[in-house]
Amino acid sequence: MCFSHGFSTMDVTKSNFRSVLEGLDDELEKASFIAIDTEFTGLNDGGSNKLSSLDTPAERYKKVLNGSSEFLVVQFGLSIFTFEKKVSKYVNKTYNFYIFPHTSMGGLCDKKFMSQASSLSFLANQGFDFNKLIKEGIPYLNLLEEEKVKFKLEKRNKFSNVDSKVHCHNDEISEIPPDQKGYVDHIVSKVTTFFESNGNDEEKSPAILEFQCSSLQSELIFSHVRTRYPNLLFVSAKKTCGGCTVTVKKAASSCNLEKESFDKKSLPAAEKPRIEDYVGFSEVVRKITNSGKLVVGHNMLLDLCHILGQFCEPLPEDYEEFKAMTNTFFPRVIDTKVMATTKPFRDLLPNSALGPLLKALLKAPFRNTEIVTAKDFPSYKDDSLKEHEAGYDAFVTGRCLIALTNYLEDISASHKAAVVHESSLITPFYQKIYMMMVTDIPYMTLSGPDLEPSREHIFYVTFPKSWKLHDIFHLFSVHGTVRVDWTGDTSAFVTLHRKENCHFVLSAMNESTLPVGCSVISYETYVNSKHKNVASSQAAEVQEQEPPRKRSGSVMHSNSSALPSPKKSRRDSENPKLNKTQFAVSADWD
Amino acid sequence: MCFSHGFSTMDVTKSNFRSVLEGLDDELEKASFIAIDTEFTGLNDGGSNKLSSLDTPAERYKKVLNGSSEFLVVQFGLSIFTFEKKVSKYVNKTYNFYIFPHTSMGGLCDKKFMSQASSLSFLANQGFDFNKLIKEGIPYLNLLEEEKVKFKLEKRNKFSNVDSKVHCHNDEISEIPPDQKGYVDHIVSKVTTFFESNGNDEEKSPAILEFQCSSLQSELIFSHVRTRYPNLLFVSAKKTCGGCTVTVKKAASSCNLEKESFDKKSLPAAEKPRIEDYVGFSEVVRKITNSGKLVVGHNMLLDLCHILGQFCEPLPEDYEEFKAMTNTFFPRVIDTKVMATTKPFRDLLPNSALGPLLKALLKAPFRNTEIVTAKDFPSYKDDSLKEHEAGYDAFVTGRCLIALTNYLEDISASHKAAVVHESSLITPFYQKIYMMMVTDIPYMTLSGPDLEPSREHIFYVTFPKSWKLHDIFHLFSVHGTVRVDWTGDTSAFVTLHRKENCHFVLSAMNESTLPVGCSVISYETYVNSKHKNVASSQAAEVQEQEPPRKRSGSVMHSNSSALPSPKKSRRDSENPKLNKTQFAVSADWD
Repeated sequence: MCFSHGFSTMDVTKSNFRSVLEGLDDELEKASFIAIDTEFTGLNDGGSNKLSSLDTPAERYKKVLNGSSEFLVVQFGLSIFTFEKKVSKYVNKTYNFYIFPHTSMGGLCDKKFMSQASSLSFLANQGFDFNKLIKEGIPYLNLLEEEKVKFKLEKRNKFSNVDSKVHCHNDEISEIPPDQKGYVDHIVSKVTTFFESNGNDEEKSPAILEFQCSSLQSELIFSHVRTRYPNLLFVSAKKTCGGCTVTVKKAASSCNLEKESFDKKSLPAAEKPRIEDYVGFSEVVRKITNSGKLVVGHNMLLDLCHILGQFCEPLPEDYEEFKAMTNTFFPRVIDTKVMATTKPFRDLLPNSALGPLLKALLKAPFRNTEIVTAKDFPSYKDDSLKEHEAGYDAFVTGRCLIALTNYLEDISASHKAAVVHESSLITPFYQKIYMMMVTDIPYMTLSGPDLEPSREHIFYVTFPKSWKLHDIFHLFSVHGTVRVDWTGDTSAFVTLHRKENCHFVLSAMNESTLPVGCSVISYETYVNSKHKNVASSQAAEVQEQEPPRKRSGSVMHSNSSALPSPKKSRRDSENPKLNKTQFAVSADWD
Repeated sequence: MCFSHGFSTMDVTKSNFRSVLEGLDDELEKASFIAIDTEFTGLNDGGSNKLSSLDTPAERYKKVLNGSSEFLVVQFGLSIFTFEKKVSKYVNKTYNFYIFPHTSMGGLCDKKFMSQASSLSFLANQGFDFNKLIKEGIPYLNLLEEEKVKFKLEKRNKFSNVDSKVHCHNDEISEIPPDQKGYVDHIVSKVTTFFESNGNDEEKSPAILEFQCSSLQSELIFSHVRTRYPNLLFVSAKKTCGGCTVTVKKAASSCNLEKESFDKKSLPAAEKPRIEDYVGFSEVVRKITNSGKLVVGHNMLLDLCHILGQFCEPLPEDYEEFKAMTNTFFPRVIDTKVMATTKPFRDLLPNSALGPLLKALLKAPFRNTEIVTAKDFPSYKDDSLKEHEAGYDAFVTGRCLIALTNYLEDISASHKAAVVHESSLITPFYQKIYMMMVTDIPYMTLSGPDLEPSREHIFYVTFPKSWKLHDIFHLFSVHGTVRVDWTGDTSAFVTLHRKENCHFVLSAMNESTLPVGCSVISYETYVNSKHKNVASSQAAEVQEQEPPRKRSGSVMHSNSSALPSPKKSRRDSENPKLNKTQFAVSADWD
């Protein structure tokens, strides 16, 4: 397989991050396109945020927002593909960034985040190194966090000059790690002695107390000791070896504190943290945005949401705002899963999961362009393939895009583009993001209105708790086979296989024919009643966000001609075999 | 140092857990006492759950409950001390358990949990192996989870006999990990083909489809494929090598499904998961409870809360219920931090943090009993000390208890007990748990009413946002020095250094003398008004939990004669030097 030849990723951690970052603008400038992938600490919190096959794009976004935003991106794969015309090859550089939140910053920022046991276990069993992640992961701040930290830093810097204004706000004091409690107690006792021994001799030139300590301990002294002594001056200075010196000085007179400035000449230069050091990995995402290059991912809704929320700005509540935000930070994205599940590929590619997809694309009728690893790029000792490492998966995604694009060019009658980013045949796929499980709305359309297929053949059914699947099959037996999507113990969505039967359902099922404790309403009625319920409590807000839906016809976005119309969905009518797998046969049930 | 001689811990993970568990009852039976310690993924979520030096025990419990219950215990140290009379030595066995939630169980249980970046970083830098934790950690269930899993298992086992009753409840379907989506699609397509190819030939003896797969894949097939085929029978069987065989059978007639039982003779024995395998580490805690032995910890409130919630039962909302629960599962506990900060030790031990405490206890006037590691106990290659490994810290805690008890015996006039668990001098410390930061209520009393010291000298002050520390000092300047505990930008608790001045404060501060936008009320008034506010919304509930407090006198628990009375707290009057460190001098402020 040609992709295994010469493939290597470069792990990026705190230790080599700065040097990688320095060259990144140049590399992105030359790039034909880039591919990305991420690994998270969890996928979805389940419960009411569980995905449904009937989710509308707005509903799906809300579920992702509520159900997964507390999980973290811990690995980011960035695979840069640069086409070299002379040799007709892509040169590739793939980076695998380990990402972990700031762990202290003197109480400025100490992130709490959620993990899902199965996700961590999955990653660990794929060889993900959690010790490396926690010890060496690159920190980050999104724009909002950056503003907050900037504000706090400015406040803190002001305090280090005019120390008497120390104001022990709750949010400035970090917890003392258990192992440091002893140290803090020790410093308190030292400072007390220092403070008291000079207590009766304030006219003398002030004595100085010095501690050699770690950065953490310096921060703890500032958060937990300094605040107890409004009439002592504390100054921290970083040493070249990485440690700190904290100097404590007794003010000549407490009345003069606000005016007195510390005699810095006798001390090393005071430490001033730079905001750029705190922004960390987010700088990579900013560079990607600024490059304007085509970004490709595979089944990338979760990736996008996590990247935006963690490294750009907090995700908005409103779905339309989310679309606008994504278009701002990622103005040109392609999801290879949308391509693989769309004509002409859906008939050629039985499995759109990343691994099987690549495998299929390596064979005829698909054509691959040779890819070589950049010459100056470090090579791994162990060249074995690393599935589910973000870097590797990003590389494979880029690989798939090349083969998919080559195929479109090969079957096209027009002039053939040799290279992905010059092909006009992939532009219909721009800003379309795959929606898992939803067969009649297979993707979100970021660049315009979403698909709105008819759901006339779907019904919302309530029934007694004792009901089982066959009771529902029985209820609908005269209308043919159905699919059941449970929404709880006593309710479900029921989808008719034979859409044309939809007009007879409600007339056949009325109070006199329905079993006791059972109700059947149309999908539209259900949606409207749900809206009404929400609207009654948050009237203005909701109307602004989601105008009442029209579900009578299907609205197609103008540039989506190559994409499946919901009326001709592959699941619905074109592939009767697949239909059978989706619909439980109920006709001969009993 | 005698404790470094021969000290070793045994790491316990999935691989050796069963064998350790088997011998545990015997070891606990022989034990003189046991020491425990835990490591968590985070400490406190801050915000409104931030600890305050004025927390009452009930308030502190609520903060721990709300602020840290989503963090996990990931390491549990169990150090068993057994006194050998013949040689007058303690024999020690220390276990260091790695603990991680169940990661799949076929969708029965997939825990989401919180981590704090700084806590993970701290542990990693202390040498904690997160890869080992995630891959090899021992799972667990508390009693409630065990009941739930039992119920689900019974339901599932019923289904595996009468497969037609499959009911795809939401909570039974786990998410498909991204890497398994391809596999699941593959199985769906295989099963569809199998189902359809035989579709017209139902009278024939049923054909069988078999998959060799991993346990996870077997679970996925049951959660995500089986539910689509109510008229196919699925049976999973575990193989000796650890994998699974899933067998799919087409029912002779779908009408007969409910009656048909699967022909098990042609198949390996169906897998029936045992609930004991799921209970995992919780079994260790149950054995500790059942042993009835003295359990010692250091600053153990968080340890206790996490152990109870994670391995016993969900923590109750009510503080009194929490006390009762703790007394049930840990009927005899001692917190060495309570001992170290109480007479006679508080004057001998300047630092009660675990490391410094042990260091002080190794010198005169303290006396140590020799401790040897059990003969049959495995010895580490690297014998270096491991601070903040739960096993090591548990061992050190036990070590401290021995030296503290020896000292009490040495200074006692009565008959001397040679061994900790025979000493009556430590019984006043039973069921007293250290409360960090609270100087007038230094511990929770689990076995009776808590201390209720007078707080007449504490005032709740509100003021304009622009106020700084010195404004508050100024406001109280005529009443002497004060301590300020901020509760927000515009409010704080103010504690008088000179308690006797408390009666003049409110009469001196009235509407005419107070600055604009400023108010001062007594602590008692504040507490009552807070209660009233809560009461007005949840009337009945609150009254039941916390009857109105009487703060006029201090109520002492009968067996706490050796413990500090709040009226004689070391911080208050006995150690004027320490007072100065707690109280900012405001007299000569301006």
